[in-house]
Amino acid sequence: MLINCIYNTYVGHYLSFGQKRMNSRIIKNRIKAVRWLLNGKKIDCLLVTKPANVTYTTGFSGDDSWAVITHRCVYLLTDSRYTEQAQNECPLCKIIERTGPITEAAAKLIKKLKTAQTIAAEKSTSLADFEAFKKAVKSRLKTVANIVEQVRSIKDGSEIAAIKRASQIAAKALGKTLLCVKPGITENELAGMLDLQIRKLGARNSFDTIVAFGPNASRPHHQPGNRKLKKNDTILIDFGARYGNCCCDLTRCFAVGKPTALYSKVYNAVQQAQAAAIKMVKAGIEISKVDAAARNIIAGYNLPVYGHGTGHGLGLEVHEEPVISHNRKGKLKAGMVCTIEPGVYMPGKLGVRIEDDVLVTETGCKILNERKSYSVGTVPRLKR
Amino acid sequence: MLINCIYNTYVGHYLSFGQKRMNSRIIKNRIKAVRWLLNGKKIDCLLVTKPANVTYTTGFSGDDSWAVITHRCVYLLTDSRYTEQAQNECPLCKIIERTGPITEAAAKLIKKLKTAQTIAAEKSTSLADFEAFKKAVKSRLKTVANIVEQVRSIKDGSEIAAIKRASQIAAKALGKTLLCVKPGITENELAGMLDLQIRKLGARNSFDTIVAFGPNASRPHHQPGNRKLKKNDTILIDFGARYGNCCCDLTRCFAVGKPTALYSKVYNAVQQAQAAAIKMVKAGIEISKVDAAARNIIAGYNLPVYGHGTGHGLGLEVHEEPVISHNRKGKLKAGMVCTIEPGVYMPGKLGVRIEDDVLVTETGCKILNERKSYSVGTVPRLKR
Repeated sequence: MLINCIYNTYVGHYLSFGQKRMNSRIIKNRIKAVRWLLNGKKIDCLLVTKPANVTYTTGFSGDDSWAVITHRCVYLLTDSRYTEQAQNECPLCKIIERTGPITEAAAKLIKKLKTAQTIAAEKSTSLADFEAFKKAVKSRLKTVANIVEQVRSIKDGSEIAAIKRASQIAAKALGKTLLCVKPGITENELAGMLDLQIRKLGARNSFDTIVAFGPNASRPHHQPGNRKLKKNDTILIDFGARYGNCCCDLTRCFAVGKPTALYSKVYNAVQQAQAAAIKMVKAGIEISKVDAAARNIIAGYNLPVYGHGTGHGLGLEVHEEPVISHNRKGKLKAGMVCTIEPGVYMPGKLGVRIEDDVLVTETGCKILNERKSYSVGTVPRLKR
Repeated sequence: MLINCIYNTYVGHYLSFGQKRMNSRIIKNRIKAVRWLLNGKKIDCLLVTKPANVTYTTGFSGDDSWAVITHRCVYLLTDSRYTEQAQNECPLCKIIERTGPITEAAAKLIKKLKTAQTIAAEKSTSLADFEAFKKAVKSRLKTVANIVEQVRSIKDGSEIAAIKRASQIAAKALGKTLLCVKPGITENELAGMLDLQIRKLGARNSFDTIVAFGPNASRPHHQPGNRKLKKNDTILIDFGARYGNCCCDLTRCFAVGKPTALYSKVYNAVQQAQAAAIKMVKAGIEISKVDAAARNIIAGYNLPVYGHGTGHGLGLEVHEEPVISHNRKGKLKAGMVCTIEPGVYMPGKLGVRIEDDVLVTETGCKILNERKSYSVGTVPRLKR
């Protein structure tokens, strides 16, 4: 791979005139919201360095590029590898092709912007980049967090449509993959097969697919290895597709052969816990209450309560705001998209997690992915 | 996927006693080298936050964890999801299980270390993390770059063996994949098939596989899309496997049907350019001379000279030190591993790049991956 290679899903397609016009409208609204927050903090100029934030505010899907947002203009600092792509993707931006380090190019631009008095850099910037930029710009700099992220936490129509499409692709890919699952297959191989199906449907995986057979699923962070599927076994698959730069994120569990009574009990509990949390989701609800709804069900079954969060936001990144956890202050807002994914983990025995993606609405929520209507308490079984 | 999920290749295998002993010896040597550099900078305590640097200095292959290196001890700050894994992978570390934010846990530890007078954090740390840590630790802090990276740039035996094994797997996977290539397949599908073959061989891809058909290859940063392979076409594949946490990185070009005279000429030129650069590689050579050797050949053919670097280091990350480029000062050292990957890009027409991974030795270099002995100037052809 070439040094400084692109990180995401630009697939060499060029946007049509209609797409460009639609994208321009979307980006305009996003920039308006970002500027409103900047005004509130009396910031004239924001240096956007986080790749997903650059994509969000410019439409640019390449890498190694920064955005500079002022009251009047949005600049994209890129290099010759991406100029053609940027011209196509970012009709609203002034594109600057740099030849030297990006920190120097950013400093040079900002020195020229005489109206920019208060300049802020995103706090996700590395110390090394910030120091180099500060040295070159010779101005007092502020640092600021969660400006673009705050806007990103409320999804626009294009993002919701993309997450929905991504989840349709993911569900279809899973269905096709499961048809090929046979005892003897390794976790690693099954993960690869699922990724291939996602690609066949014109998308790609949104993160490293997790496949865990049997007790391996008790490690929530398990990565697929060489464990082979047995005749009587269980499968946990945590996966997602990325489409139109947006991610979905789903977890499904299956039994191969007849599941044990314990597995069925746990599956039932997790399903009920997830349903309880989803039922709580609506605009204005305390985040910690959503989290508690799921945990209380698991505790009520006398099962070990999971250590991870109950969910997380989803969009350009697979982990975004809001984090749904017990110690998170704040309320859900309409337009947020998040996962709901309680689980039960019993080391050496089993692990069950069920995860769906929901859009928060004023009156409740909408599940964005397809859900086969499994009866509660019945583990989906792959017949072999 | 769970929030705060693991980033790399821990595959749920537990290390044997022999492996642990071997790993301990390797880690000890690495820490010795890091401490020597810290002494030179009069630093008593280094906060290691970059994931690959944490892996390198502790053996821990999980995520969301930091290392603290003092004169006496190496601490690993992790959380309950990883404690079991850390105990298995890091016999030399004192493992601290945090319950709150990692910045607070790091500050609490450092406050206890009374011998640590001069504390430094890695410059790759984000501003947000550094600020939170600084606030909590209430000490003067230094920032420092390229301490662990400098040690990492010279590979130890375990890394060289892992890169070699990764490249064997990659070559085998490519061979198997090419047997299935037929006109009509999409770039995206071919990329997925190759990734699957890598997984079947017990590894995984070391970065997002690049597959470009025909003129798409003229974009060095092209990402596989829905372009279908034609009866007479060309294929560029830039891919790698990750094994034992180490990456390989290879690029191969093929013709389907008879290549055009231009394609053959370009392929020949790139092959010669790569051979010229590889011939220059040895300990003590100026990096810019290696770069120039390849570029001069391309220029000699009156072909457009590529804009990217001629190569980059390779190890735990797919892009490491040394960067092989025209403006890079410094010399190659024995034990460095890097790619050599010149290319020619003619928009709308073609793109050719050939990439191999070499180990720098005192007298020259050793190519770590398998290379089929194609005659110079002959484009490898897939017969359909």
